[in-house]
Amino acid sequence: MSSIRRIEVEKTISREQLQMAARNHGMPLEALAYPITPLGLHYLLIHYDIPVVDAAAWRLVVDGEVERPLELSLDELRARPSVEIAATMECAGNGRVGLSPHVDSQPWLHEAVGTGAWRGVRLRELLDAAGVGVGAVEVLFTGLDRGLEDEVEQSYQRSLSLEDARRDEVLLAFELNGVPLAPQHGFPLRLLVPGWYGMTSVKWLAHVTVLAHPFEGFQMAKRYRLQQDEEDEGMPLTRMAPRALAVPPGIPDFHSRERFLEPGPIVLRGRAWSGFARIASVEVSVDGGETWRAAELEHDVDSEWAWSAWTVDWEAPLGRHELCFRARDEAGNEQPPEGEWNVGGYGNNAVQRIVVNVS
Amino acid sequence: MSSIRRIEVEKTISREQLQMAARNHGMPLEALAYPITPLGLHYLLIHYDIPVVDAAAWRLVVDGEVERPLELSLDELRARPSVEIAATMECAGNGRVGLSPHVDSQPWLHEAVGTGAWRGVRLRELLDAAGVGVGAVEVLFTGLDRGLEDEVEQSYQRSLSLEDARRDEVLLAFELNGVPLAPQHGFPLRLLVPGWYGMTSVKWLAHVTVLAHPFEGFQMAKRYRLQQDEEDEGMPLTRMAPRALAVPPGIPDFHSRERFLEPGPIVLRGRAWSGFARIASVEVSVDGGETWRAAELEHDVDSEWAWSAWTVDWEAPLGRHELCFRARDEAGNEQPPEGEWNVGGYGNNAVQRIVVNVS
Repeated sequence: MSSIRRIEVEKTISREQLQMAARNHGMPLEALAYPITPLGLHYLLIHYDIPVVDAAAWRLVVDGEVERPLELSLDELRARPSVEIAATMECAGNGRVGLSPHVDSQPWLHEAVGTGAWRGVRLRELLDAAGVGVGAVEVLFTGLDRGLEDEVEQSYQRSLSLEDARRDEVLLAFELNGVPLAPQHGFPLRLLVPGWYGMTSVKWLAHVTVLAHPFEGFQMAKRYRLQQDEEDEGMPLTRMAPRALAVPPGIPDFHSRERFLEPGPIVLRGRAWSGFARIASVEVSVDGGETWRAAELEHDVDSEWAWSAWTVDWEAPLGRHELCFRARDEAGNEQPPEGEWNVGGYGNNAVQRIVVNVS
Repeated sequence: MSSIRRIEVEKTISREQLQMAARNHGMPLEALAYPITPLGLHYLLIHYDIPVVDAAAWRLVVDGEVERPLELSLDELRARPSVEIAATMECAGNGRVGLSPHVDSQPWLHEAVGTGAWRGVRLRELLDAAGVGVGAVEVLFTGLDRGLEDEVEQSYQRSLSLEDARRDEVLLAFELNGVPLAPQHGFPLRLLVPGWYGMTSVKWLAHVTVLAHPFEGFQMAKRYRLQQDEEDEGMPLTRMAPRALAVPPGIPDFHSRERFLEPGPIVLRGRAWSGFARIASVEVSVDGGETWRAAELEHDVDSEWAWSAWTVDWEAPLGRHELCFRARDEAGNEQPPEGEWNVGGYGNNAVQRIVVNVS
C-alpha cells in the first residue's frame, strides 16, 4: 500500500459559502449508478432565487437583429417539433474546493453533475423562424432570475456566438426526464447547450435577443473565465473538461464519509464525460496513482452528449488504499493529477481520489 | 431602525461537514411559496448512501411478536387500500448552525424542511393483518441503508412505541406528489410519521419487527436525544417544535445572500408548522424583535399535518432592517429568541432573522 495523499483543503468555509452549499444541491456520487439521473438528484446551481413563474402569463420573446420578432406561449412552443437529448451537465465550479488557496464561492467537491433527458425545440428553428439579420454575431439569453453581483442589480444573462447557437443539439427545453421542468430546473423553459458547463444553459428563459455586437455582461466578462489574477482578462469557460468519477465503493462512515469494505473481489464502477468528445479511456489506480490500468467502457446512454459507464474488477486486499480515477477523451484531453488554480476556481478536473478501508 | 444582531456562527466548517452539506439537500427558502414542495426541492438527509433497490426482488417483511408474519411485494402493497396525507417534515438538526459552540454534524441553517403529498398504506392495517402479539411494546423499522457510526457497521434503524405506530396517520408510503418515491426519498417504501422529525420516517424500508422490549439501537440511544453532555442520557426527540420561516423578500446578492428591495408596500409571506398542534399564530417584527405584530394565517393545505401559510403587509422604509418571525402552536409551544445548546445540535427552533436592505 502506498502512502496516502489526502487532498488537503483549507478548513475555513465561511458562512457565505455554507449558505450557498445549503441551497445548491450536489448529486450524491452513488447516483452515478443511474444512466439518467433521477429527478431530484441532478445538481443545482441557483445564482439568485428560483422564480415562481405563472406559465399562463409567461411568453418567450425572440427579438433584436431579426426580421420577424416572435412572442410565443408555452403551448405554442410545445406544439412545435421537439427532440429529446440526454446530456450530462456539470457546473464550471465543480472541484473548486480542491484548489489552493481556497476560492470563496460555491464550495463544490465533486458532486456538481447530472445527466438529464431534456426535451425541447431546437433553438436554430426558432432563429430561422424569426429570420436572423445579416449583422448578427451573438445570441443573448436572459432569465427571469434577478440578483446583485458586485452591488449591481441584474438579470442572469449569458450569450453564445451565432455559430454555437445554431448548432444542432442546442435546445430550448421544457421537459426533463419526461415531465415538465421543475421550478429549480428553469420552469417553464431553459436553454440547453449540451457539452458546455452549466452556466451557459440559462434557466427561466424569457428573452432571446439576437445581437450585432458581443455581449459584455457580468456573467460573460467578470465570471466564468480562467483568470490568473483579477487583472487578467482570461479565457472564457466553454466545454466541460473530461472527468471520471466513481460510485464510492463499500459503505460510508456517517461522519467522515470514509469508505469501508470487505476484502475480496469487487467491481469498481462509475461514469466519465467530456464536452469536447466521446470518452476514449478511463484508468484506475488502486495504489494512489503509482500504477494504472484500463477500465471497461460502455456508452450505455444513447447520446453523444451523455456520460459513459466504466467498470474495473478489483481483488481488494486488507488495508487502507487510495483509489484514483482518470479519463481521457477522443480529442486527447486528459485529467491532470492536480488542478490549476484560477481566480474563480473553475474547471478543476483533477483526478478523483477515494480512500477505502478494507477490513 | 434598531441595531442589527446577526446570528453569529463559528466560521470553521470542517471538510467532514462540507461533505455532508454537499450531499444533503436543503429546501431553498423561496420554495416556501409552494403549498406542496415540488419534487427535488424537499430537504434530504441521507445518513449513509442511497441504496439502488430492485423493486421486483424487494419484499417487506413484517415479523417478530406477531401471529402471522407477512412478506409483501411492492405490487401487493400497492393493491391494498391506500391514503394520501400531506405532511410537513423537518430534520431534527434544522437550525444546528445557529447553536454555539458549533456542533460537528450536518450543518443546517434553516432549509431542512419540506411538505410532501405522501401516499401509502396505513401501518396499523398491516399490523392488524399480522396480528400483534400480547407482549408487544414497540415496532422496529429497518432500512436497506448501511453505514458506520462510531466504528460499528449497522443498518439504519428506528423504533416507535406500539401506541405511536398504531396512530391513524402513520403510513408505509410508496408515492410522493403522485409518483413513485424517488430513490432519495426511500424507494420503494418508507415509513411516514407525520408530525415527527424526519429521522423517524425510515427510508428504504425492508423490515418491520414487532418487539416485546424497547429497541436500544444507535439511532435511538446515541442520537436524536436532547443531551446536555455526553454522559446525559437525555430526552428523545419526537415531534417537531413550532417554527415560522419567511420567503426571503426582495432579491439576493449572489455571494452574501443578503436581501435587497425597494421602499414601499410589500407583502411578507412564509409558512409555519408544529408537530404538536395546529399553528395558532405567527408574529412578525421589522425592528429586530423590539415590537411584534400578528400575521394573517391561512391553513391552505387540507391536512392537519401540513404547514400553514402566513402573510403580513409591510411599508418598507429606506434603511437596513432585521426582520424576525416566530410561531406559536395551539398546544402553547412557541419559538424562543435563542436556541438551547445540546450535544447533538437538535431542535433549535430559535426565531428566524433576515436582514434586508431597502434602497
